[in-house]
Amino acid sequence: MIIQPIIDLVAICARKDVKNVILSPGSRCAPLTLAFARHPDIHCRSISDERSAAFVALGMAQQLKKPVVLVCSSGTAALNYAPAVAEAYFQQIPLVVITADRPPEWIDQWDGQTIRQQNIYGRHIKQSFDFPDHFGHTDIVWHAHRIGNEAINIASNFPEGPVHINIPIREPFYPEDLEEFDFNRPIPIVNKLDTCTKLSSESVVKLKNELERFHRIVIIPGQQAPDQSILGLLNQLASQQKAVVISDTISNMQAGNTITHHDQILPAVDHAAFSPDLIISFGKSIISKPLKNFLRSSGAEHWHIQPAGYSPDTYQGLVKIIPSSVKDTLELLVQSTHKIDEAFHHRWYHADKRMEKAIQNVMEQGDFGEWKAIYRVLQQLPQQSKLHLANSMAVRYVNFLGARPQEIICNRGTSGIDGSNSTAVGCTFTTKEFVTLITGDMAFFYDRNAFWNNYTTNNLRIILLNNHAGGIFRIIKGPSQQPELKEFFETTQSLNAENLAKDFEFDYTAVKTEKELNDGLLGFYAPSIRPKIIEVFSDSTKNAAILSKVKSALKGFMDVEK
Amino acid sequence: MIIQPIIDLVAICARKDVKNVILSPGSRCAPLTLAFARHPDIHCRSISDERSAAFVALGMAQQLKKPVVLVCSSGTAALNYAPAVAEAYFQQIPLVVITADRPPEWIDQWDGQTIRQQNIYGRHIKQSFDFPDHFGHTDIVWHAHRIGNEAINIASNFPEGPVHINIPIREPFYPEDLEEFDFNRPIPIVNKLDTCTKLSSESVVKLKNELERFHRIVIIPGQQAPDQSILGLLNQLASQQKAVVISDTISNMQAGNTITHHDQILPAVDHAAFSPDLIISFGKSIISKPLKNFLRSSGAEHWHIQPAGYSPDTYQGLVKIIPSSVKDTLELLVQSTHKIDEAFHHRWYHADKRMEKAIQNVMEQGDFGEWKAIYRVLQQLPQQSKLHLANSMAVRYVNFLGARPQEIICNRGTSGIDGSNSTAVGCTFTTKEFVTLITGDMAFFYDRNAFWNNYTTNNLRIILLNNHAGGIFRIIKGPSQQPELKEFFETTQSLNAENLAKDFEFDYTAVKTEKELNDGLLGFYAPSIRPKIIEVFSDSTKNAAILSKVKSALKGFMDVEK
Repeated sequence: MIIQPIIDLVAICARKDVKNVILSPGSRCAPLTLAFARHPDIHCRSISDERSAAFVALGMAQQLKKPVVLVCSSGTAALNYAPAVAEAYFQQIPLVVITADRPPEWIDQWDGQTIRQQNIYGRHIKQSFDFPDHFGHTDIVWHAHRIGNEAINIASNFPEGPVHINIPIREPFYPEDLEEFDFNRPIPIVNKLDTCTKLSSESVVKLKNELERFHRIVIIPGQQAPDQSILGLLNQLASQQKAVVISDTISNMQAGNTITHHDQILPAVDHAAFSPDLIISFGKSIISKPLKNFLRSSGAEHWHIQPAGYSPDTYQGLVKIIPSSVKDTLELLVQSTHKIDEAFHHRWYHADKRMEKAIQNVMEQGDFGEWKAIYRVLQQLPQQSKLHLANSMAVRYVNFLGARPQEIICNRGTSGIDGSNSTAVGCTFTTKEFVTLITGDMAFFYDRNAFWNNYTTNNLRIILLNNHAGGIFRIIKGPSQQPELKEFFETTQSLNAENLAKDFEFDYTAVKTEKELNDGLLGFYAPSIRPKIIEVFSDSTKNAAILSKVKSALKGFMDVEK
Repeated sequence: MIIQPIIDLVAICARKDVKNVILSPGSRCAPLTLAFARHPDIHCRSISDERSAAFVALGMAQQLKKPVVLVCSSGTAALNYAPAVAEAYFQQIPLVVITADRPPEWIDQWDGQTIRQQNIYGRHIKQSFDFPDHFGHTDIVWHAHRIGNEAINIASNFPEGPVHINIPIREPFYPEDLEEFDFNRPIPIVNKLDTCTKLSSESVVKLKNELERFHRIVIIPGQQAPDQSILGLLNQLASQQKAVVISDTISNMQAGNTITHHDQILPAVDHAAFSPDLIISFGKSIISKPLKNFLRSSGAEHWHIQPAGYSPDTYQGLVKIIPSSVKDTLELLVQSTHKIDEAFHHRWYHADKRMEKAIQNVMEQGDFGEWKAIYRVLQQLPQQSKLHLANSMAVRYVNFLGARPQEIICNRGTSGIDGSNSTAVGCTFTTKEFVTLITGDMAFFYDRNAFWNNYTTNNLRIILLNNHAGGIFRIIKGPSQQPELKEFFETTQSLNAENLAKDFEFDYTAVKTEKELNDGLLGFYAPSIRPKIIEVFSDSTKNAAILSKVKSALKGFMDVEK
């Protein structure tokens, strides 16, 4: 039997330009599956492991900048979405999560695949809707249409995020023989116009005046998608000596006049000379722990730019929220007549240039290990391509190395290791550019079901850094000194990706030396009908020793510089 | 730095006989990891994929009948536990879920691995506790001790289930050089005595009188662990003609005088002649859809026996809740003078015997496919062993075949496919008996991370029925008629387990015919240092045809019988 409001929901998605759907198989969700699959303007893909399915959808929505729909059956399927839903919530990625449910009368009657699905994502969802389970009154049909419109509008509104529609469905689930799906009924489509929030002219004057008070302004862009106009403004501010711009790798604001070697500079210099008196931030989180700690202990005022939504106090000095667009605010800074202290400005940019050279020297000469492997891989990355980085070491290593021109993507909303592969796979569904994933073995094998689907990901390239353990635990001081290090922190694991590559039809190369890696990288970015993996084997103990050696060499380099 | 109340929490677990812990690696949870790992009476295992870790814990607690502790770090780790937590909630399995968290001041400040962990399991947890984050007052320490005691008591109380303790932890996480863990401080241990709820003597008299009203009493045991005393009482009731006992495979009440072929009998007989006027049930859910539908449309009164907690109305005829122990209530039935209708009683037991023979005939002669494979495997199962069945087809097939002497385990709390492997792995950690898992390919590959750990599971035997799809969708009528069957319902998948067997060091045998299967089963249950997989390849279309052919043959058999 056809449930017309479900057909209408699908029609609303299509008419509101939400056209990508990740389905997971199930019976209860059949009316949704059929309606999405049969809509001529909607592209469906089927992924069986819902944990992976949700991260794939996230990886797509990240790129498309519009909601991707998830559809699953009743029961724990919905709970398997939860890690990606939380990531989407904190990374502010729009998703429309649709879960089929038993009708209310069958909840808690010990019937199969029945859990308590209403509000199942708790406080990690922008809004949860309960779709009607019967349509005996026209107001109820109108309500169903409201839900479809509102869900997409809310997911897409800044700050974007996931919304949930729970849809109770009674049998029969399947259309009768001659029933046809009608996607063209007259249904209300509610579109919300884009807005911009402008500061009042009084606020603008006040802000400009206030800027004069500060002589050591740093701008800290947090995680966000690439944006040339913002990057242009940042470069202008830096070159006009109006601010020092310090950019983590996930900010995608690293080209030109931005400081990108702060991870190495900060441990090597006298903090007092580098401390700001004003921090201006925008975007989401940053990775660099040295930078976070440095800013927290600087005592500087912190202004955060964000057009709407909750503003966190990441550096424990938040005093001003600027509820305006980043672009407008940076333009205001460009127009402002303030200048920061020349010596301060010079000190930072000089240190960054020196550190860039130092890193190059040290890396070229240093021993081969996972860090150097990343260094070599980054040199080979196509300029126009996307770089996915897994938590936790891969993204840190790349940040240690400084500026990248490629778009950098990393699940830093919750910083989990649970969906890096799937997120990268989702990305490949949206672009013909190469998508490179650099990952450690823990994150890689954790999410190995990312590749368990029937779709082509031939533009995917994976650099798997296999040290057979969670190497980060050997690098941070506490766990490395515990007798439980191997079993309970690093959690040694013996897998390599060779068999996985056979299962999922990847080209596979194993390397253990720099020479082998360089050879493996030749042709790595040639077009192919299969995705490719280079697995770099290294030793966790040796990696930790190299990291420590390199860091102290870099620190020494700056000491000499003084 | 040592956080003594965390040491005390671990000591409380040990002293309350909660001695098995599944840890997942993380830094925030280090004080918990170290304390559990260093306690002399506690056995820890480390499993990296938290989704699997939680199902492993569930598989252990299912057998041990006491809580198993889970420990994970902050962030989405906790959400990866959610599917198993929901399964534990509905299957009533005791778990103590401990999640390390950032301290409250750092929630929502965009710091790494920080989500909103309080009450994260929503309505799928018996209780959620917020552990204190500082201990500056003796009352706070007392509160921490209260939480440890209460959590374990609540998890263990009938109906058992999961509880959650969220523990905010500030740095430093690691002990100083000379700090020693003291598990022997004087701390309050609160033990709750076992109780039994007895019916009042008036209720007993009334119940016995009421029984005389009924002439067609059926007893339906739901899912539960084996219990010889209950089984003995059921057999007595059946042989004394006081009830017809109809037992699904997951009830573990199938030996002796119980009807176990209802799945085949009901479609073949005149329902009026077999309909009860009273249903007495206990335990949790049943699988058989024909039985559920038959009972729902029977119009019979339904009494449910359950000492405490919520009683569902699974058959839509619930009129009496008997809040007493199953054993006491069945003894009361044994002592009662009522007798049910002889013809009714005979009809059921005669049909069951006939159907048993019919199934044997039909299965012996029929074509080889996944159903026959299961039939053969069941003939070879060691009498003293455990049989895990995955959702959805494996458990249904076994139920179709009737009585089993082995303990049957299946995640029917939520009936998900997401944790069958891990649950079976957990089971192997608790027994030296063979643990056989019969599973389809979807459930098997979904949960392949179950084997990603460093522990021995050499008593594990897996029968993998690989039809390269979710075969159930070809068997149920609706989806099999949709053009979307292959891509969006069955979700064809191309994997086989050969490479996985190499990765995880399983003995591996692939079979395609009955002869190969029989050969493969020779020696399958010989002791070995490696676990073993037999992968049975079959064709989803052919399986559906065989199933339908066998079912109609069985129906015909009963027709002739009339």
